[in-house]
Amino acid sequence: MTHKVSSYIAGAWITPEDEGAPIFDASNGEVVATASSTGVDFEAMIAHARTVGGPALRAMTFTQRGLALKNLAKYLKGRVDEVYADYGVSGATLADARVDVEGGIGVLFVYASKALKELPNDTIIVEGNPENIVDKHQGQTIYTTPDGVAVFINAFNFPVWGMLEKLATAFIAGIPVIVKPATPTAQIAELSFRHIIESGILPEGSVQFVGGSIVGALDHLGGQDAILFTGSAATAARLRTAACVVERGTKFTAEADSVNATILGPDAGVDTEEFSAFVKGIFRELSSKTGQKCTCIRRIFVPPALVEPTVNALLARLGKIVVGDPRVEGTTMGPLVNASQRDDVASSVRALMKGAELRCGGPDIVPTIASGDAERGGFFPPTVLVANDSRAPQIHEVEAFGPVATVIPYTSTDDLVDLVSRGEGSLVASVASHDPAWIRDLMIRIAPYHGRLLILDRENAATAPPHGAALPQLIHGGPGRAGGGAELGGLRSVKHMMQATSISAGPEMMVGLTQVWNPAAEAKPLEVHPFRIYLDDLKLGDTLFTGSRTITLEDIEHFAHFTGDTFYAHMDEEAAAASPIFKGRVAHGYFLLAAAAGLFVDPDPGPVLANFGLENLRFTQPVYPGESIRVRLTCKSKLVRPGTGWGEVTWDVALTNEKDEVVATYQLLTINACRPTE
Amino acid sequence: MTHKVSSYIAGAWITPEDEGAPIFDASNGEVVATASSTGVDFEAMIAHARTVGGPALRAMTFTQRGLALKNLAKYLKGRVDEVYADYGVSGATLADARVDVEGGIGVLFVYASKALKELPNDTIIVEGNPENIVDKHQGQTIYTTPDGVAVFINAFNFPVWGMLEKLATAFIAGIPVIVKPATPTAQIAELSFRHIIESGILPEGSVQFVGGSIVGALDHLGGQDAILFTGSAATAARLRTAACVVERGTKFTAEADSVNATILGPDAGVDTEEFSAFVKGIFRELSSKTGQKCTCIRRIFVPPALVEPTVNALLARLGKIVVGDPRVEGTTMGPLVNASQRDDVASSVRALMKGAELRCGGPDIVPTIASGDAERGGFFPPTVLVANDSRAPQIHEVEAFGPVATVIPYTSTDDLVDLVSRGEGSLVASVASHDPAWIRDLMIRIAPYHGRLLILDRENAATAPPHGAALPQLIHGGPGRAGGGAELGGLRSVKHMMQATSISAGPEMMVGLTQVWNPAAEAKPLEVHPFRIYLDDLKLGDTLFTGSRTITLEDIEHFAHFTGDTFYAHMDEEAAAASPIFKGRVAHGYFLLAAAAGLFVDPDPGPVLANFGLENLRFTQPVYPGESIRVRLTCKSKLVRPGTGWGEVTWDVALTNEKDEVVATYQLLTINACRPTE
Repeated sequence: MTHKVSSYIAGAWITPEDEGAPIFDASNGEVVATASSTGVDFEAMIAHARTVGGPALRAMTFTQRGLALKNLAKYLKGRVDEVYADYGVSGATLADARVDVEGGIGVLFVYASKALKELPNDTIIVEGNPENIVDKHQGQTIYTTPDGVAVFINAFNFPVWGMLEKLATAFIAGIPVIVKPATPTAQIAELSFRHIIESGILPEGSVQFVGGSIVGALDHLGGQDAILFTGSAATAARLRTAACVVERGTKFTAEADSVNATILGPDAGVDTEEFSAFVKGIFRELSSKTGQKCTCIRRIFVPPALVEPTVNALLARLGKIVVGDPRVEGTTMGPLVNASQRDDVASSVRALMKGAELRCGGPDIVPTIASGDAERGGFFPPTVLVANDSRAPQIHEVEAFGPVATVIPYTSTDDLVDLVSRGEGSLVASVASHDPAWIRDLMIRIAPYHGRLLILDRENAATAPPHGAALPQLIHGGPGRAGGGAELGGLRSVKHMMQATSISAGPEMMVGLTQVWNPAAEAKPLEVHPFRIYLDDLKLGDTLFTGSRTITLEDIEHFAHFTGDTFYAHMDEEAAAASPIFKGRVAHGYFLLAAAAGLFVDPDPGPVLANFGLENLRFTQPVYPGESIRVRLTCKSKLVRPGTGWGEVTWDVALTNEKDEVVATYQLLTINACRPTE
Repeated sequence: MTHKVSSYIAGAWITPEDEGAPIFDASNGEVVATASSTGVDFEAMIAHARTVGGPALRAMTFTQRGLALKNLAKYLKGRVDEVYADYGVSGATLADARVDVEGGIGVLFVYASKALKELPNDTIIVEGNPENIVDKHQGQTIYTTPDGVAVFINAFNFPVWGMLEKLATAFIAGIPVIVKPATPTAQIAELSFRHIIESGILPEGSVQFVGGSIVGALDHLGGQDAILFTGSAATAARLRTAACVVERGTKFTAEADSVNATILGPDAGVDTEEFSAFVKGIFRELSSKTGQKCTCIRRIFVPPALVEPTVNALLARLGKIVVGDPRVEGTTMGPLVNASQRDDVASSVRALMKGAELRCGGPDIVPTIASGDAERGGFFPPTVLVANDSRAPQIHEVEAFGPVATVIPYTSTDDLVDLVSRGEGSLVASVASHDPAWIRDLMIRIAPYHGRLLILDRENAATAPPHGAALPQLIHGGPGRAGGGAELGGLRSVKHMMQATSISAGPEMMVGLTQVWNPAAEAKPLEVHPFRIYLDDLKLGDTLFTGSRTITLEDIEHFAHFTGDTFYAHMDEEAAAASPIFKGRVAHGYFLLAAAAGLFVDPDPGPVLANFGLENLRFTQPVYPGESIRVRLTCKSKLVRPGTGWGEVTWDVALTNEKDEVVATYQLLTINACRPTE
């Protein structure tokens, strides 16, 4: 009996009763599994996510979510071999499988780390500082977690990465998810998903899995929910008109067709390192994953004289590829995922051939294969075309989702920009050139058409990840035809999944709501020195007001000679007075900082362990000899590092002169101890 | 002859030949103008924006755009009286008109100021610092201006503000716009638009105006274009399924129906300042603009015991309103914009009455008016309802776009959250309460349903702008039913209109592309001291490597006693060694900063005028007595302030010890002179 891909709903696996859609062995066309969602109660599934998963996730802070994600990543890393054992059936080589599985786990690690390092130990993100709108009224933007569910509709080419990269973002954002894999590789996604459940790390209801069609779920989505789709532009367009999206405001993002470009700069002749990196980049894209990547290169732009050298260099490399069953030793490129996909690619290449000439491969030859079944498998040869007419519409519009690309000549930068823009929005473009001025101009003009640009030159040729690599730090998603998606890009995608809301309130209230003090709120004088208070007991707004110190000319002289900072503004009355900024000699800013510390520091050992930094220092007014300074030191925010017994305090500091004018402001960062536990 | 609202296309006004749709005097139903776009060549209009307006705007830096916007705001401010002279015809009082006209101009001023202060004198925005992805390869996100046009489809209630608030964002983003006003007030938008053209300040092609239907333009929009819509949810849903949006990726944002809530906290009894502010807030919303604001309060949530006190307090205030022709002295509330709108509101109130009981006003009484034509004008009385059933669907779903709101009791915070969320997404909610803990909990739960939350209490009651005020600093747009818009919110909306693209490149290339140096790029030693180089001649990466200074125990002692900073970590060997961070006495961080300045400062007068601040200081490793420090000071970025002869330099500074370990890093900010002109 073939394996039946099941669904995981409300804490239980549901095996479909019916046959379902067949899943084929990519190399020989045998049915290896079936997928169906018959029997899934979509309403109950979404209710489970909303009432069990959502509340459990929203109760966790970003720090707790980061720790869980890190543990999950470690757990999955320990089980990759189980996934690889069954992976070759999809036509992928082990190297391809690694990109999918370990790439996906890598995204989990990066998001875990970002949550732990860059987000607060809280459930909301507070953006920047409040703006004072009018007296006693401030505005501030925060991000909160929607009260809904995220539905992932994934593509067949990255069954594991596609699931994990979306999960990383949604999980950190605190949103329960439902994963719907593409049928041709649903059994691989299912296996990896089983590992997630077996880990026991994620809270109940935070992840569910639908083995077959998910259309029935859309009726139950509303304005707090999101659909994250990866697949064809045609399906994206259909989903975009679903009632939940059009009428109820379900957030919809898509990664769809993308006729990605790679560009050889006018400076990059055949003997340059840039040309080598360019050709190598194209080869990597066409051969890895058999060209089945939404980020794969489809259009190759070169100066006219470089068309033939580029084609020849590519043909030389592509000729060495061993096409075959990836489970057979020696195979370097597997088949497409199935014969139907092969037929689609063949038909797309026929469309391309209306505007371009075939230089190798193509739809009408039986590919030479070292192993596998040429007829029933998904084999397709590496295929390179050269444009007959650089403006033929097909070459800019048709995405042949296999090892297929078209070389297109460009005659000038303006011509190049026009040609690139005919892709009408792509995920990524790459440029091989060593001319920063030319690239900057090009970048400004083609970036609006792209989610990501990769620049290759001699500096990074040896280390840069390939054109097609969607890295967690960089945006994955492009405008227009590419679907307008907004995945990855570090915490950008997390914020994208959350709701940005501007709150406005009086300053005291704002402190209570955001848990960050600001100078329009009350600075509350303490009876004891704040350096004597454990982190747990310190309250936002707790303030030390110091006595004052008069800054004398002797102080300035002394400081200058002791430190070596004899800048004229401190030492030369005439030159200082002649400057457009000062009326005469002024105190060193660093002396003011040091004297301020002299005023506010409490010397004995205590909860304050160290000053580890300082932010946003501004000297707002000069201090002249004979003037005095005093300090306000106020607890602005606290961050407890769970499990360490320590945390960090940000102090808002203002130095004022004897006329109560502010002369300097900054935030001081200290490491503070928690109250020792008994 | 009645006035014909014209279109402004490709630098010329086009007066329609045909009759067009009638525009009525709100108080008496007379036709005062007609609007039509017959004769407009939409394809030519969009081509003009793309080929003339777009390039002109993209050639301007943010600074230049900010200056132009500031000048435009000043110009329009000088002509407000002309707009007010004709404004009363729409039913608005002078106070209402001021909110529209001066409110809109205020948005221009705020965006001009933000562009000048917060954006670079460049055409792209570089976000944060690059991330090191692998050796010699970095990632960074930038924002560039799309190669398209923004179409504004505005609502009738704010003909000027609606145009200017969207223009402010698009203009700073560098995007040419086409304004399509709503017919009932199209002549007011047209007059204000004529002033914009007459100012001569905006580049040709950057703004165009369509007096009537704009449907024909949608066929010409693509993936680089945007539609910014304000109006009904039904129209929003229709636009959302336009082929340009669904198939070609035109960006679509909407401000649609919004059944906004105001909430009285459980702590806010009738005798509190919060209760007064709450009632005053509702009164302001219902009476100003005759309740025709997308941000107006529609649902009033109070504890059960406060239902009657709230209704009574409202009735007392609403009873004093003088309804009439706003051009007649003494009128405090005008009619709705026309009789058809009045009939719509009446029908909506009838729907509300299925779930609520009328307490004043309503659709079935002829309103008492002091002036105007009760039958042919748009008069509608202030209307308050009380919910029969707090879960009646109508009261959460129907937006009666006039002076209409429903009082709804809630029994607990959970009940309140459930009720508020039944609005399924709103622009704004307000909360009157003086209990920060209760509000924070509520905020986290209802913020996902809102673009903006206003908190009112005794602290800000006297100064806070009204619930309905869409301020430029705060987000205007809500999820779900509210349309998912993303206007205002400071530079957030500017970035939203631009394209975010992650670029990845080697560090040297990254410096060339972003014009910001980073420590993975080469620090280039200079022959002369960098303080001797004028701003114009300073290059990114120009570096001073200093000699070293040994930090002695005497230095530390001396610094401590001179500054007064005798913190134990510097002064007490035993206590310092006992801390979890230090091995013994360490140098003061402030001493390291001062000694670094002593090493890098060039004392004589020159282009460096002052050190005005410091950013991101981190002490990464302690410095013990006997160790030495040296400094690398590198030009990281430059900002020339046009027309001043000055600018700012950010220097990247690293302090290293004798083992070449980094002990401190920061960015130093200086004011530098440009080379004097002859």
